[in-house]
Amino acid sequence: MNFCSSCGAVVTLRVPEGDDRERYVCASCEAIHYINPRVIVGCLPVHEGRVLLCRRAIEPRRNYWTLPAGFMENGETSMAGAARETWEEAHARATDLELYRIFDVPHISQVYMFYRCGLQGGEYGVGPESLESALFGEAEIPWDEIAFPVVREALSEYFDDVRQGRFPVRVSAIERMKRPPAV
Amino acid sequence: MNFCSSCGAVVTLRVPEGDDRERYVCASCEAIHYINPRVIVGCLPVHEGRVLLCRRAIEPRRNYWTLPAGFMENGETSMAGAARETWEEAHARATDLELYRIFDVPHISQVYMFYRCGLQGGEYGVGPESLESALFGEAEIPWDEIAFPVVREALSEYFDDVRQGRFPVRVSAIERMKRPPAV
Repeated sequence: MNFCSSCGAVVTLRVPEGDDRERYVCASCEAIHYINPRVIVGCLPVHEGRVLLCRRAIEPRRNYWTLPAGFMENGETSMAGAARETWEEAHARATDLELYRIFDVPHISQVYMFYRCGLQGGEYGVGPESLESALFGEAEIPWDEIAFPVVREALSEYFDDVRQGRFPVRVSAIERMKRPPAV
Repeated sequence: MNFCSSCGAVVTLRVPEGDDRERYVCASCEAIHYINPRVIVGCLPVHEGRVLLCRRAIEPRRNYWTLPAGFMENGETSMAGAARETWEEAHARATDLELYRIFDVPHISQVYMFYRCGLQGGEYGVGPESLESALFGEAEIPWDEIAFPVVREALSEYFDDVRQGRFPVRVSAIERMKRPPAV
């Protein structure tokens, strides 16, 4: 952030009076510009015991598999956003959505909210941000080609929960991904 | 939003190519400025069966009672943010935090995440944004002086859950508050 979105003057990074962390503050109109975490909403769609994944057509992690998910929009509920993303990325109608898994990813200031759901008619397609979509049973999941740690963890827990026959809502944090040292 | 926070030029509200809703787009550098829902994190602190509430020293809803809560900050987890707000607003140390209640409030583009917790040493105080803090049993809750619908609903459900002896994580949407017609 370089300029005040309200008046167009230059902003400076400083701790406003009564605050305890740095914010972008306008040098002219004194508006304080807060930057807050963003919410990613998505679905874990299940049809006849198999989970719907999409192979990403876009960066980051192009060609890797993910659950349909994306940024929550203003004016929608998290559930509506999760269903919208499932339509946009997999051309599938999510049914019977139940909140399932929340992840904090503090190093990128994101909160993920995944809903378990069914697939209307068992039907799905391919949205513009996906290369393909497919249903996977546990043994078929391409574990080495999953796009993001949150997706890998949600899938792994889901199949454990199927065996337990219960689907508690969980929240936990994902730490910065440890990359193997370059060879 | 009037000006591009990146280059300082004027922004216009239009639907970017490949998108399906209006965004602020810079007329000069073409940066797209997304505006997303914000997350409010807070606690429902319980000590010996009574819930800690704070009376607000600031608008909106000055003088009304609320659970300690506030905007989640970049770089923190929702749990850490809920504990931070409990310290800031009630000078209380939250212990044993468990995710409890999520609310979508789409007409103001907010998501609330409340954690149940204990109070270290049963101690609390008064932060700069509060007039006072106090513990309330169910019969003592000032139901007509609760600041926000999400707080009223979380408290009401909590005491129901105490009777049931179970505390499932729930999510639901709060619709626009219906105000009684002005007399």
